[in-house]
Parts: sequence; structure tokens; C-alpha cells
Amino acid sequence: MRAADIIIKKRGTGNQKGQELSQEEIEFLVNGYVDGSIPDYQMSAFLMAVYFSGMTFGETGILTGCMLRSGDTIDLEKLKGLKGPFVDKHSTGGVGDKISLPLAPIVASLGVKIPMMSGRGLGHTGGTLDKLESIEDYNVNLNEEQFASIIEKTGFAMMGQTEKIVPADKKMYALRDVTGTVESVPLITASILSKKVAEGSDALVFDVKCGKGAFMKSESDAGQLASFLVKTAQAMGKSSCALLTRMDSPLGFKVGNYLEIEETLECLQGKGPADVMELTYALASRMAVFGGMAKDTEDGIAKCKEAVKSGKALSKFLENVKAQGGNPDKLLGEQGKRRSKFKSELFAKQDGFLTVDAYKTGIACINLGVGRNKSSDKVDADSGIIFCRRQGDFVKKGEKLLEVYGKSPDALESGKQQLEAALDFCEEKPEEKKLVLKEIK
Amino acid sequence: MRAADIIIKKRGTGNQKGQELSQEEIEFLVNGYVDGSIPDYQMSAFLMAVYFSGMTFGETGILTGCMLRSGDTIDLEKLKGLKGPFVDKHSTGGVGDKISLPLAPIVASLGVKIPMMSGRGLGHTGGTLDKLESIEDYNVNLNEEQFASIIEKTGFAMMGQTEKIVPADKKMYALRDVTGTVESVPLITASILSKKVAEGSDALVFDVKCGKGAFMKSESDAGQLASFLVKTAQAMGKSSCALLTRMDSPLGFKVGNYLEIEETLECLQGKGPADVMELTYALASRMAVFGGMAKDTEDGIAKCKEAVKSGKALSKFLENVKAQGGNPDKLLGEQGKRRSKFKSELFAKQDGFLTVDAYKTGIACINLGVGRNKSSDKVDADSGIIFCRRQGDFVKKGEKLLEVYGKSPDALESGKQQLEAALDFCEEKPEEKKLVLKEIK
Repeated sequence: MRAADIIIKKRGTGNQKGQELSQEEIEFLVNGYVDGSIPDYQMSAFLMAVYFSGMTFGETGILTGCMLRSGDTIDLEKLKGLKGPFVDKHSTGGVGDKISLPLAPIVASLGVKIPMMSGRGLGHTGGTLDKLESIEDYNVNLNEEQFASIIEKTGFAMMGQTEKIVPADKKMYALRDVTGTVESVPLITASILSKKVAEGSDALVFDVKCGKGAFMKSESDAGQLASFLVKTAQAMGKSSCALLTRMDSPLGFKVGNYLEIEETLECLQGKGPADVMELTYALASRMAVFGGMAKDTEDGIAKCKEAVKSGKALSKFLENVKAQGGNPDKLLGEQGKRRSKFKSELFAKQDGFLTVDAYKTGIACINLGVGRNKSSDKVDADSGIIFCRRQGDFVKKGEKLLEVYGKSPDALESGKQQLEAALDFCEEKPEEKKLVLKEIK
Repeated sequence: MRAADIIIKKRGTGNQKGQELSQEEIEFLVNGYVDGSIPDYQMSAFLMAVYFSGMTFGETGILTGCMLRSGDTIDLEKLKGLKGPFVDKHSTGGVGDKISLPLAPIVASLGVKIPMMSGRGLGHTGGTLDKLESIEDYNVNLNEEQFASIIEKTGFAMMGQTEKIVPADKKMYALRDVTGTVESVPLITASILSKKVAEGSDALVFDVKCGKGAFMKSESDAGQLASFLVKTAQAMGKSSCALLTRMDSPLGFKVGNYLEIEETLECLQGKGPADVMELTYALASRMAVFGGMAKDTEDGIAKCKEAVKSGKALSKFLENVKAQGGNPDKLLGEQGKRRSKFKSELFAKQDGFLTVDAYKTGIACINLGVGRNKSSDKVDADSGIIFCRRQGDFVKKGEKLLEVYGKSPDALESGKQQLEAALDFCEEKPEEKKLVLKEIK
């Protein structure tokens, strides 16, 4: 078997389109790439051929499996005798998207076990790990043993990807990033799924976002990714569904690292913003069904609401904070008070219906200190934005729109300027779009 | 400027097709690749994006120019005060395609100067340099000075590509070979043209072959390549035309290295096979027109025929053999006698019209010793095939079809077996196709 022949088979010849690869061919490439016998330049040509020729669900499943087997997988039953079904959620990323944070304790409080391996902020989007690390002493660098043990104790655990989990994805993702091969649905699918399956999940709920603040701008691209994720997961024996959701303007009132932890507390205290709660319940209820704790989505939503109302979900969250090294009392004590000292405000420049562009907000947040310009940058816990008025609200000239916090006076100034470009004032009320567009299962 | 952004621009995004790159962008990539600042893995991803997204004539011209400027170019006027127009021919390669060998002395004998930089056998096709080196002491490893001096003396010179000529092409071709990015019309065009322009030609005639024994199997693919070659050459200020010619069965009666030199002598002695002479005159006449020695193709053909008839073309060839280190008397003395001692014959297995598959013949020749299985293989001068009967001839069972010569008994045996698969016997006379299908100018 020669790498060049496999590349050509996927690429196609003349008027003949690229063909479906066999298990042996995909294994040859991925295993060879991981062990170094296939060089970067053949893999990058292959990835570009996949960008153009695509992959079937079958091929994507095989690719995912190969990547998965390149490293360790977490076996929660073997480690701690835990019984599934283990259920997780994955979001393709947005601005103000803190859904994982209220969702995990809500679902865990119903008795579903959640092994959650999360990521850091990527581009203009925030990352669950960065947010969690704004909680003093909260440890996301768990080993497999600790991960299993915290799930056993509190029903859910939140960790980052370790060196040993899916090394093929690490190597391939770094290559895709510099060779223009990120935006391929089967490659994105394999990258996401290999990690989610490695963490030990039996069922997966996907939040696939589309719109200005999402990586997939169009509903059709996002729909294609959602289908790939669900069908490939199912082909690998996992229960799965996806919600296609809008990401045109930020979710919730708060965007930042600690600020989103604070909004999470509000959600669990029954004071969460309507959009955050709607999406949390929509996703959480489906996890409850997969976890065997609700008979259908409606029943799941009712149970999740009850978990918030009763305070069980908040207790679950605080239990987890403690189990992962944080101090729940300190966290509650900071609520509403902990703010960066570099603060400013923005006011409405004219009367009109406010629009807030999620992508531009995300870019402004990078500069405030919430995100990273390059991967070696450190994020700032206390930077961010608190919106007083939101997308679609009618505002009067001079009215306060938001508070903005930066990691330094310079960061504050540049982030504030960018933020002004994210805001607009329209004469007509912008169309209210549904948050959850579609379910794919 | 970032390489990844240029790759993405050429690749396209979502439903948007890849875009045309600017001079600066193409230069950034090619110069960076040659100086090592752009790694192989970005270049291979870019080349695959070009395979799918294509390039305009303008981009292809810019790419060709960048590659050209990566190394030395031969300035015949500066070196020896030679005056152009310098005219050359390039063939995309076939089996039994020795056209350059009779063509160069014919055209040179009319007074046109021909700087001919040729290649070695590639895949199943033969190479002019391999054939010339079967002439004892014939030297194709000329430096620029020697090249110019031999053109001054004998009107034409034949050399291989030196290390200093178009190093970008060497590096890119080696990468394309292992990353499934050879079969791209703009990349093939830039590779061919950069070398032809570097050798100092002012006008170029292309023989673009299509059919079973060509790299381009279909007439439409070959036509596209022909258009690219001609239009890009013209955009670079070179006069140019191309003939689209059939390569389904071998050209001439002899296939091999020395054997094709022998058939060249026959051509120049007025005893050449009809197909070889037809194609030689078709191409040579167009070179004569570009070189200012004929008023049109018809006039060119008449003058070329006269050059053969008068013996001038043969003298020119022998002059060149002497100038490049060979012994013309010895060469003439060997004619019809020099043969490998490992010889066999093939006979008709049944009555019928004979068909000869050029590709399969070429593959058999590799095994006989004419070509290479890997680039480090040495070719054998005396291996090859002499056809007694050819494509379209009616043959009787048991009739001798061809003589076959190998570099060793094993090579002979395996080559002979493969050759049997190249022959077929049909009840109906195969359609006679025109050799020259179309002119593109």
C-alpha cells in the first residue's frame, strides 16, 4: 500500500470523483501518520483531498475509530466500576455560550453520569476550561483516575484533553490549522467525535451553532455537520442527536471567564437569562432521556426545571467545585462583586432597536483579555462584558448599554473600541429568530 | 502574508470557489518554498487545492515565471552572440516517440537554431536523453557554455536539465510525485514551460499526446493541456502552437534506446516509417515557420522533406553526434547489426487484425530494460522491440509479429510475457484514426 495511491483514490482522476476508502487504507494513513512513517506533506495533501472530495459516514466513522485508537480511552467501569449510560454534550462554540456549566450539574442531579472533556477558547469563541479556571484552585488537569473518581462522587467531572487521549487528533489538528484544511465536515466530525468517544460517553447530544458568531455561518453547512456528527456517532454505536441553534448575538447577559461562571450561578439559582435557560433545558432534557432518567424531552424539561427550582442542581455544581479543588463558599461570596478594576461603560449613540454582532463581540473579548490572540497567550479571569440591554431591545440615546472590563487600561480601550463596532441601532425591530432551529436525530 | 491564508484563498470557502491569486501571493509561496521558509506540508496542501480549484492562464504564467526565476536561464545571445529566434519542441511523452531525434537535425538544417533541453524516460514512456546516451560517448551533461557553443556549431544541441535550471520545478515535482498532485493542467504547464523558457527558446511547438499510451487519456484533457501550454507561453511573450496527436499504439517500428536511434537514422536516410515522418514533418514545419525559414506549414513541410531527400538533415545529425562526443562513422557502421544477445520473437496466436496497446508495450519495455522501475535504475541501451507487423495489419496465425530484446534472460522473459498482453487479434479491422487530431494556436 502506498500513501500516494490512497491520496489519488480519494482525490479522483480526470472526470472521476474521489472514491470511498477502505478501513485498511484509512488505517494505513492515520497509523502511519501517528508513528511518523507517513510525512506531514502526504497527510496535508490527503486532508485537502478530503476537503474537496468529502467522506461518507462510514469512512468518517473509520477515521474516527483510527484516531480514537491512537491513544488511551477512558473506561469508567474498569476504573471505578461505574455503570453507564454515560452522557455528554458538545457545542461547536459560540460567544457567551456557557451552556455546559449549568447543564452538567442539572443533568447530573437527575442521576445521569457525565464525563465531560472540554476545550479552551478557540478564535472568537470562549472555552469551558478557561471559564472554570477563573474559579480559584479549580483543577481541570485531572488524570483518568481522578476524573472517574469525581464522576463517582458528584455525577460529573470537567477535564481537559490529556497528552495520551487521541494524539492523532492533536497532530492532525495542528497540521490542519496551517494548511487550510480545518473547514471540512468529516474532519471536524472525526476530531470532535474521537475525543468524545475517548472520554467514555455512550450517548452524545450536539449543539451545532450557525450564524454570525458560529464557525458555520450558514444553516445548511451547520445542518450538514450536525448530520455527520449524529450519523457517525450512531454508526459507532453511540446514541446521539443534535440541535441546530442560532448564534448571531451573544447568549445571556455576561460574556467573559469568571463573568460566565457568575451567570451560571444565576442560572442555577433560578435567575438565568431566558435564552440561556431555553437552550440549557433543550439540551439537558435530551441528555436526561439518553441517560434513562426521563421518558421524553418534555418530561426531561420538566425534571430539569424542577432540579433548578429545588436547588439540587446548584448543590451539585458546588459539590463539583469542591471536588475539583475550588471553594464553594468563596465562590458564592464573590457573586456580584468580583470585577476587574479596569472598567468602562458604553451608551447608546442614538435611539433605535439594538443589534449585537456575536462575532465582533467575541473579537472584542479577545482584546479585553477573555481570549487568546496566539495559543501561548494567558487568558484573564475577570475581563468581559455585562450587557444591560440586548439584541432586539429598543434603546434611547444616551442609555447605558453595557459594562466592559479589561485586563489592563490598554486592553480595555482597544476592546471597547471594537465593541462599539459590534453594536448597531435600527429603525425597525430586527426579526426575532428561533433559538433552536431544528433537531437532527 | 500567511501561507495558510493563500491556501484557503485558492481552496475557496463553503460554496465559494477558490479565487485567483495575485502575483505577490504566488511569489510568496514559490520563493518561500525554494528558500525553505514554506514547508513541504503547506506546499502540498496548496498543490492539491490547485488540482481542484485550477488556475487561470494568468496565474499559470505567474507561477511559471516564479519557477523560472528560481534558477539560471540560458542567454544564448549573451553567451555566444547567437541571434534567434530560437525554437524548440516539447512532447508530453509516448511509446516509440523518437520525434525529437529526426526533427532537430531536419529543422536545424534549414537554419533554425534549436536549444533542446530534454528529459529521461518517465513511467511507461521513453526519454530522449536515454536514447541519445545509447550512442557511445554521446554527452548530454553539457554546461551552458558547451550548449551554446554546440548550437553555434551545428544548429542544435541536446542536453539534460542542470542543477541550476529551475530548481523550484525539481523540488515541486518531487513533492507532486508523492502527494498525488501530478495530474493538474496548470502545474504540468508551469513545470514544462519553466524549463523550456529557461533554455532560451523564443518559440515553442508542443506535441500533446492523448490515448492509451499517453499521460492524458482523453482528447478533452489533452486539449485543455494544449490550450494551457500555448496560451501561457504566449502570455509570456513566446510564439507557440500545439498539435494534439494520437498515442494509442507505438510510433514507428522500433521501441528502445539504441533501436530508436537506429530508426532515426532510417528517417534521415529517407526510409522512415510513415507515421514517424508524418508527425516529424507536422511539428518540424511549424518550427520552420516560427524560425523564419518557411512562409507557412505547407512550405515548411516541403522544405523539411527536401532536407531529408538531399541528405542535409542526416549530415546535421552526424555533425551533432560528433560535436557532443560521439563517433558518427561507428554509429553508421552499427546500423542494423547492434542488438542485445538476449533475443526472442513473438508470433500471431490466431488470424486477425493486430492491435498493439502502447501503454502495455511501454510497461513491457520497462521490464526489458529500456526504462526504469525506480529512478535509481540504469537503463539498458540495446533492449527493446522491433515490430514486423503493426497496429491494423491483418496477420495469419503463426506469423512473426516482432523481435524482442532484453537486458538479461530474466528481463527478456518477463518483458515478453507482458508484451503478449499488449497484442490482440480482432475480427474486424480497427478504425484508422488520424495521427494529428487538431492544431491549437
